[in-house]
Amino acid sequence: MKNADQNTFLDINLKSLSENYLKIKKRVTKNCIVAATVKSNAYGLGVNKVLPALIRSKCKHFFVASTDEAMEIRKINKKVEVFILNGLVLEDLNILSKYKLIPVINNLKQLRKIERYQGKFCKKLKIAIHFDTGMSRLGLDKNETAKLIKNQSKLIKNSDLVLIMSHLACADDPKRKKNQSQLNEFNKIRKHFPNCLHSISNSGGVLLGRKYNLNMVRPGISIYGGNCQIRERKHYKNVVSLKSKLIQIREINKGDTVGYGATFKAKKKMKIGTFAIGYGDGFSRLFSNNCKIYLNNKRINLIGRVSMDSVTVDLSEFTNLKQISNKEFEFIGDKNPINTVCASINTIPYEILTNLGKRYQRRYIS
Amino acid sequence: MKNADQNTFLDINLKSLSENYLKIKKRVTKNCIVAATVKSNAYGLGVNKVLPALIRSKCKHFFVASTDEAMEIRKINKKVEVFILNGLVLEDLNILSKYKLIPVINNLKQLRKIERYQGKFCKKLKIAIHFDTGMSRLGLDKNETAKLIKNQSKLIKNSDLVLIMSHLACADDPKRKKNQSQLNEFNKIRKHFPNCLHSISNSGGVLLGRKYNLNMVRPGISIYGGNCQIRERKHYKNVVSLKSKLIQIREINKGDTVGYGATFKAKKKMKIGTFAIGYGDGFSRLFSNNCKIYLNNKRINLIGRVSMDSVTVDLSEFTNLKQISNKEFEFIGDKNPINTVCASINTIPYEILTNLGKRYQRRYIS
Repeated sequence: MKNADQNTFLDINLKSLSENYLKIKKRVTKNCIVAATVKSNAYGLGVNKVLPALIRSKCKHFFVASTDEAMEIRKINKKVEVFILNGLVLEDLNILSKYKLIPVINNLKQLRKIERYQGKFCKKLKIAIHFDTGMSRLGLDKNETAKLIKNQSKLIKNSDLVLIMSHLACADDPKRKKNQSQLNEFNKIRKHFPNCLHSISNSGGVLLGRKYNLNMVRPGISIYGGNCQIRERKHYKNVVSLKSKLIQIREINKGDTVGYGATFKAKKKMKIGTFAIGYGDGFSRLFSNNCKIYLNNKRINLIGRVSMDSVTVDLSEFTNLKQISNKEFEFIGDKNPINTVCASINTIPYEILTNLGKRYQRRYIS
Repeated sequence: MKNADQNTFLDINLKSLSENYLKIKKRVTKNCIVAATVKSNAYGLGVNKVLPALIRSKCKHFFVASTDEAMEIRKINKKVEVFILNGLVLEDLNILSKYKLIPVINNLKQLRKIERYQGKFCKKLKIAIHFDTGMSRLGLDKNETAKLIKNQSKLIKNSDLVLIMSHLACADDPKRKKNQSQLNEFNKIRKHFPNCLHSISNSGGVLLGRKYNLNMVRPGISIYGGNCQIRERKHYKNVVSLKSKLIQIREINKGDTVGYGATFKAKKKMKIGTFAIGYGDGFSRLFSNNCKIYLNNKRINLIGRVSMDSVTVDLSEFTNLKQISNKEFEFIGDKNPINTVCASINTIPYEILTNLGKRYQRRYIS
């Protein structure tokens, strides 16, 4: 009987992760670069392990959210191309220059600032530019886009523009017309920038067909084994498993209740198992009375509310408790894929992955 | 315009935190010890800052979940009493002994193990024992409790029993009869252990009245400013504020959509602001199209889905955008207390706090 840290395991299969990356590589056109989105600590899986695995699979282009995340990449590898999605931070210009990090410029103000910096210090920096074609979140809006196209040679004098990109809002649903309309919009824009890379596709975009490939795609969730489409068939291998050993088994009587709020009441004598997994570990409280876990092929119901540090399950069907006391139960894994688990609480695999397990032991399988 | 790390601030008011602790101290009977529950990194607020603040307020007893968390406490302070709630880990016995950490024994098996260890190495360790009176989660069940009471002198020969405890399941609702029945149950048990501390109350228990005080209470969420009761009046001060500066402002036209899934469609020309806060930072995706934020007294609607690294809001009412471009908008705080925020997504302040902000800048106010 151990504590949280020694009893719960987040297994990350780097072999499956690499296979997923290579599968995307096979799916896209021959000359299309497959970059990898590794922001938010590689969606929570640990960028220090995920990055080397992807580099071994010949991935050379990476997308992160912030300068801090980019510096994490640079600690691991000095050569790969690192794009910073959240835009230019004025205070970070020296760092970008020193470590050859590529800001994804999100508006003309940022462009003017980086141009001025290069003029002043006689530098030439790589930049990317993000055009908004329908997310209304980041990137140049329509007015700014028109302005840039019209005055390109004036506005980009010093920078080395290596990539223009946009981002699909509804790539999770191939039936939405918005995908094609965003692509049309971006096609009009990219005609004006023939000498750099063009990218519009995230994981969902990769599955929309080759016309969305352009010459760079930048998947994230698919590499990590999560569905990127609402009705996705099983394209990619499961990468993440969450397993845990029991920290306690108890008997309760008919009428006894389980957990906070006494939301579960026993109709008969029962055996209850407790695991050291809770919402403090990112295991959502929405799983309260609403989650199945597995031991081999046996399905086990989570009962009662999820606590901060523990959950309880119904073990009444097991006759030999000694036999199961040191076994690893599967909360997420091959029997219980992340895509099924997240559907039951009406979220997406991205959210489950990024929130999981500050206190779990990570085991990397390679 | 900066990145996530420099743009978003988790403010933690250690002064209010201490005031909340002292307010509990005033509420309980004179000789009742007020311990503090600081598991899960002090509910996400940072145990390295929270602990010294509580120690300055004369708190001397702390509860954590695991040995790892207990060791974090010991790095900060060598003298305070540290109780480990998740029970005894056999492999950790030497650490418990060396660093004077107190395991909360959860079953007779654990008790036998720690007794045997002390016998073998001629040691005397402090222990606590947890009796289950209605959570069915951790602690000795009815059979084990009866067994221990009957054979106390045989089963506890070496250990120094300093505390017996139980845990309330429905303390968030003073109307539930279960509170009184758990107290009755515990009162029967504690008669048999007259020479140690007795504790049954968490934050909710503190508000149930003095008969639930016994000689130790162990609040957590109240200290951190979160409600612990369903219909709680404002007993405690707000401790946590989440503030963020805009990373981008854009104009969109009638018919344009915002964010993933295009769930928001503009009925007129609008101004949209983007913040570097997302579910990758623990800001739940359930806030999609369902959250208000504040700038001074102005209420602003979050629109579209929450992304991994960003959210978008409606800034159409602001005429002077330059004036707001460097302002801190309040996502959680005095205008928008954590208790209101969590109610809108049907969770409890505990979950919001423990998940918030791996990538935010923390600012401690003392």
